[in-house]
Parts: sequence; structure tokens; C-alpha cells
Amino acid sequence: MTKTVYLDNSATTRCFPEVVELMDRILLEEYGNPSSMHHKGVEAEKRIREAGQILADILHCKRSNLYFTSCGTESDNLAIIGAARAAARTGHHLITTKIEHPAVLETMKYLEGEGFEVTYLPVDAEGKVSPADVEEAVREDTILVSVMHTNNEIGTVEPIEEIGAAIKRKNPATLFHVDAVQGFGKARILPGKMHIDLLSASGHKIHAPKGMGLLYVRDGVRLRSILFGGGQQGGLRSGTENTAGIAGMALAAKMLYDHLEEDREMLYGLKEQFLRELEGTEGIHVNGPAGREGAPHVISLSFDGVRSEVLLHALEEKGIYVSAGSACSSNRPHVSGTLTEIGVPKEHLDSTIRFSTSVMNTPEDMTAAADALKELLPFLRKYTRH
Amino acid sequence: MTKTVYLDNSATTRCFPEVVELMDRILLEEYGNPSSMHHKGVEAEKRIREAGQILADILHCKRSNLYFTSCGTESDNLAIIGAARAAARTGHHLITTKIEHPAVLETMKYLEGEGFEVTYLPVDAEGKVSPADVEEAVREDTILVSVMHTNNEIGTVEPIEEIGAAIKRKNPATLFHVDAVQGFGKARILPGKMHIDLLSASGHKIHAPKGMGLLYVRDGVRLRSILFGGGQQGGLRSGTENTAGIAGMALAAKMLYDHLEEDREMLYGLKEQFLRELEGTEGIHVNGPAGREGAPHVISLSFDGVRSEVLLHALEEKGIYVSAGSACSSNRPHVSGTLTEIGVPKEHLDSTIRFSTSVMNTPEDMTAAADALKELLPFLRKYTRH
Repeated sequence: MTKTVYLDNSATTRCFPEVVELMDRILLEEYGNPSSMHHKGVEAEKRIREAGQILADILHCKRSNLYFTSCGTESDNLAIIGAARAAARTGHHLITTKIEHPAVLETMKYLEGEGFEVTYLPVDAEGKVSPADVEEAVREDTILVSVMHTNNEIGTVEPIEEIGAAIKRKNPATLFHVDAVQGFGKARILPGKMHIDLLSASGHKIHAPKGMGLLYVRDGVRLRSILFGGGQQGGLRSGTENTAGIAGMALAAKMLYDHLEEDREMLYGLKEQFLRELEGTEGIHVNGPAGREGAPHVISLSFDGVRSEVLLHALEEKGIYVSAGSACSSNRPHVSGTLTEIGVPKEHLDSTIRFSTSVMNTPEDMTAAADALKELLPFLRKYTRH
Repeated sequence: MTKTVYLDNSATTRCFPEVVELMDRILLEEYGNPSSMHHKGVEAEKRIREAGQILADILHCKRSNLYFTSCGTESDNLAIIGAARAAARTGHHLITTKIEHPAVLETMKYLEGEGFEVTYLPVDAEGKVSPADVEEAVREDTILVSVMHTNNEIGTVEPIEEIGAAIKRKNPATLFHVDAVQGFGKARILPGKMHIDLLSASGHKIHAPKGMGLLYVRDGVRLRSILFGGGQQGGLRSGTENTAGIAGMALAAKMLYDHLEEDREMLYGLKEQFLRELEGTEGIHVNGPAGREGAPHVISLSFDGVRSEVLLHALEEKGIYVSAGSACSSNRPHVSGTLTEIGVPKEHLDSTIRFSTSVMNTPEDMTAAADALKELLPFLRKYTRH
């Protein structure tokens, strides 16, 4: 049997076994409803409180700043729609970038339909948003600016702190939302220091289960709910809390943040090794920021003369799992917004593969992937040219 | 150590061990993103497809009628808000009852704030909605009627099929939404036969994990999304699918529906046994429908001269877990809407306990609870009277 080399960690990750073990205990033993008044409820509520404290320690905030949602998408929606509705009387202008995840871009489109005005900022050739551009775009009636922490397709790490400072300089009332779905668990993100008012993260990108999201809300920020019901979580997010998922996400985050610096070093090592092993192989182009400028775990490569789908399936036959563009969208084929925006030549748009790593990957995985590419590319190119 | 007698299954249930085992396999082995094009994605997508088929077979519908959400609350919100927004050009009138779960009532209140008009129908002394009342209330501009299948506090089973027929007789364009969070897994619910257009269910009430909801949408019913993003699930519900939760919910539902008739018989037996054992104990009043008219798993009792919170904690000390009113709301104390609406005397509103069973309960559990009540009530009453 072929060994699995999973290099699609930006799409989703394998759960940490420790996380699954904890979830099992909660699902089978500590299964109470956190709203129940008896011991079983108190026990479940305690799990949520502990999870909140772990995550608050990581983000250097208070437990009361954190809300649990069902996914990164819901966190983005709640932050953006919730802030827009709460502030609708003071302004109707929103700002974002052209390379955001659909959870932000589609939400902005929805709000345009509701009468809001949205400015979409461009990025440079490496996917970077300019803080000066943001500052210029912020107006008196700008409610919110939403910029992603780490781009999901090419790994650009945005200058969040500089953007935050620029926003607040121009209009202290403008809220700053950061979609950190790809950055959380991979970088130190401190909302207080970085002028972030709202921050979204997801469980299944950090070895916790799917169906879990986190939203940080700075003290004093007003949000309106987007789900109505039993009034859980201070009324902001109704619905019985997913105790097992919440505890699992907190444990996964703790496991990552306890060794963040070493893990980042390790992941940059894998990235550098992979690119080094591919040196000298013709017709490979790196998209996005080079070296340690970008995220440690995302490598986007375009290949001359090979369609990404063909290469993806050829790699799959060798047990190597990668992504053509971003798998966070439903599986209809689409042209990547990020690649277009950073000016990737038209002939490469359809020839790009994302390799994304996690702490579960090894140097052997990268060698296997590099060797496979070196073997497959000449063959596939020959085949394609016919 | 005291044996746990968990009689709060309408608040939430213990996961079936088989469900946890299946989830573990998915979280650790079949962890791909269902949108990924490679084998790991296809494997995850297959799990979702299989889960959909299991649930479709139970509801006698097609897989394409089913959508997965993060909880019963989200299913209710998506059904009601989604239908209201989609039909906002044709009408602004909605109908519901006074005894719905907050996930319906609070959503209706939100829509009132958006300019919709909502009619709240009364219920009789057993919590029943009259199909004739519904028919009378339906107008030409009525977009949707929402009635729960089984009441969460007193176990009333509403005459869903008759209500559905009444709605369609009066206005075939009016949609019928049924919140079946308490009924799914406990009763055969056939949307086609019962004139149901939209049906909500929840995972954690049927021994599946928290953080899972199901929404049935009849062919041709138009809904607008309430979450925007990657366009998963035909664009209606964006966000990476919670594969483990989805597969877990389907397995739990299958395990229940494979033996539904026997299980219902067993649960009615427990209910009858419990009430029989309490016969002759003074000052106990049964709320809601008597015997087999009500749901098999909900028993609501009011106790003369004892506050429910005191009784709840006294039972808790004996390892017996019950609910004071409904635990689906956040744990702020509140007066129950259902009890008020069915005319429970004021002095009983604060003296009511819900005992709710599941297939995991045994005759011994009911005897333990009845014995505890017989022992505690005289003592607590004496104490209270001082």
C-alpha cells in the first residue's frame, strides 16, 4: 500500500489523536447541556469555560471576548454582517481586499445587495495589501475593514498590525476584522497589539474537528446576532454549544501554540527543503512571497505545460494529496481570484498546485512530493503537448 | 458512587458509542475536505452522500432535499429567515404558535423588526394547536406557518398532518415549516404525506453530537442563504461540511428508526410505569397530554409547595438529572411560555420539573426517580413551609 503524503492541510487537517480522545470523553461521559442547571450541565459548562481560557491566553484577551461558532465561515459572517447591522445608522461603507476568502467576499456581496457600499482593495504581486491604500480608503462613514491574516492560496502574510494602525489613525471608529482562518495556529496573533477588533478562526485547519469556529470580539464592539434562539453565549450566538468541538479546538490550539516557534521553524524548513529539491527542475514558478516572508505552510507552484487537475490526480496515484487552487470553495471549477489579482500569467492560472503542510508532515513527505514531481512533469508535459 | 439516572434527554443526549466510533474513524482517517478533488476529499464526500441517503430514506425524500447545518437553531433560522427573504416580494405575513422554541419565536421577533407581520396562535390546555385556527389565520399574503412537531416542555404532539392540510387548502403557496427537534427520532415524520415544506432536526437530541442540524427542503421551495461563502451544499449553506457530525447524526437516526416502534413502546412503558409508581403521592400534577396522546419521552410534573430548583438539586444529589422547564435556553431563569399558555396555575409555574427519557433509560431509572420523589417531597415541603 502506498504511504499517504497529505499536503492539503490548508484545505483541512487530520485531528490530533489527543483531541479525538478528549472529544470522546465529552461525547460519552460529559455529555450534558451546558445550559442545564444540574451537575452534568455544570460539567459541560466548565469544559467551555476552560476552553475559553486556553484560547484567551493564546490571544492575550479575556474569555468574555470569545464566541464559539460552527465554522470559520460563520465567524466571518457574524463579524461582518453583525458589525454592519449594528452600525447601519452611522455608516454604510465597508472595505476589504480582492483576495479574501469567499466567506468574506460573498458576505460583502450580500451586504452590497442590502445597500452597503464596499471598496475592494488591490494587492501587489506578492499578494500584499498596502497599509497606505487602506488608510486612503477609510472614510468617515467606513464601518469596517476586513483583511485576511494569511492568504489561503499563496500564503501571503498581510501586514496586519500596520493596517490596523493605519485604520485607527484615519478613523478610530472603523472596526478592523481579520479573517485568521489560515493564520491561527501558525503565527502569534495578538488582537490587542494589532488593533484588531474582530478575529475569525476555524477548528478544522488546526487539527480540531470540522464544524467549529471562533470569533474574538474586542470589548465595547457592538454586533447584532445573525442566529436567533435560546440566547446562549450572551445572546450573540444562540444554539446549544458544541462542547466536544469547543474543548477539542482549544486543546488543538494549545498543542500548537505551546511549540509555535519550533513548529514554524520546522515548517519553514520543510518549505525550503521542498523548493531546494525542486531547484533545477524546469518550468516551475513560485507564486506569492518567497522564503520566510510568506506563511510557513503554504507553497503555491505553477507548472509550465501541465494542467493542475491532471497533475493533482497523477500525484494522488502516488498517495500525495494536494490542492488545485483553494479547496475551501465547493468543488465547482473556478478561476482563482488571488492568482488573477497578483498577476499570474493566464497560462498558469490553470496550472497551479498548492502544497500545504502541517506539524504532521516530515522531510520524507517533501522528498516524496519533490521526487514525484520530477518524475511526473516530463511525462505529463509530453502527454499534454500531443 | 451514586449511579447516574439521566432524565434530561430533551435537553441533550449521550452519544451512541457506535456514533463516537464512526466519528473517530472520520476525524483520524477520513479527514479530507469534502470539496477536495483528491481521494481524501472523495472519501469524505462519500460519507456525506451516504449520510444523506440514510436520512432521506427515513424521511421518504430525496438526498437533494436535505441540508446539513450546525444545530436545530440554525435549521429553524435558515428555514424561517430564508423563506421570508425569498418571498418578501409576495407577502409579509407569518404564522406561528405561542409555545414554540425560542429558535422559532426569537427568529419571528427578528423578522418583525424587519417589517414582517407575525400572528401567534394560542394552544389549548394540552398544548394543542387547532388546525381550524391555523386555517383561519392563513391569508393571501401568508408566506409561512411554523409549528413544532413535539413540544419540548410538556411533550404535546401537534396534529401536523391536519395543520399541513389546512394550510394548503387555504393557500397552497404558504409554506409549512415544522420544528421537529423534539420529534425526530421519536416519531415517524413524513414531510411528503404531512404537507411539510421545511423540517428542522437536531443531532444532539438523538444521541449524535452537538453542533449538528438537519434541514429538509421540499423540491421547488425557494430559500435565501443566511451564511455566505464557499458555496457548499448547492450554495444554500456555505462552510466546510462537518463530515464526522453528519455521518454521526445519520447513524444515530438509523439506529433509532430501525427500531422506532419497539422503542416508542418501551418509552411509553417507562412513562406509564413512572406515573403509576407516583400514584397516591399527594400534590403532583401532570402537565400536557395524558398517556399516549403525548410524546413518549417527555413527562412534565408540577409539585405543590416545592420550588423546582430546590427539587432539581435534591434529585441531583441522588444522581438523578432532570430539568426545571426547558434547558434549551441559556441558563438565566425564566418563566416558561408553554406552561403559561396552557394555563398552568401561577403557583405551579415555578414548581415544574421535566423528566425526559431516551432509549438509554431503564425501568430501574424510573423507579429510582419515583422513589426519590416520594422520599424528597414530604421533606422538602416541610422545609419550604417553615
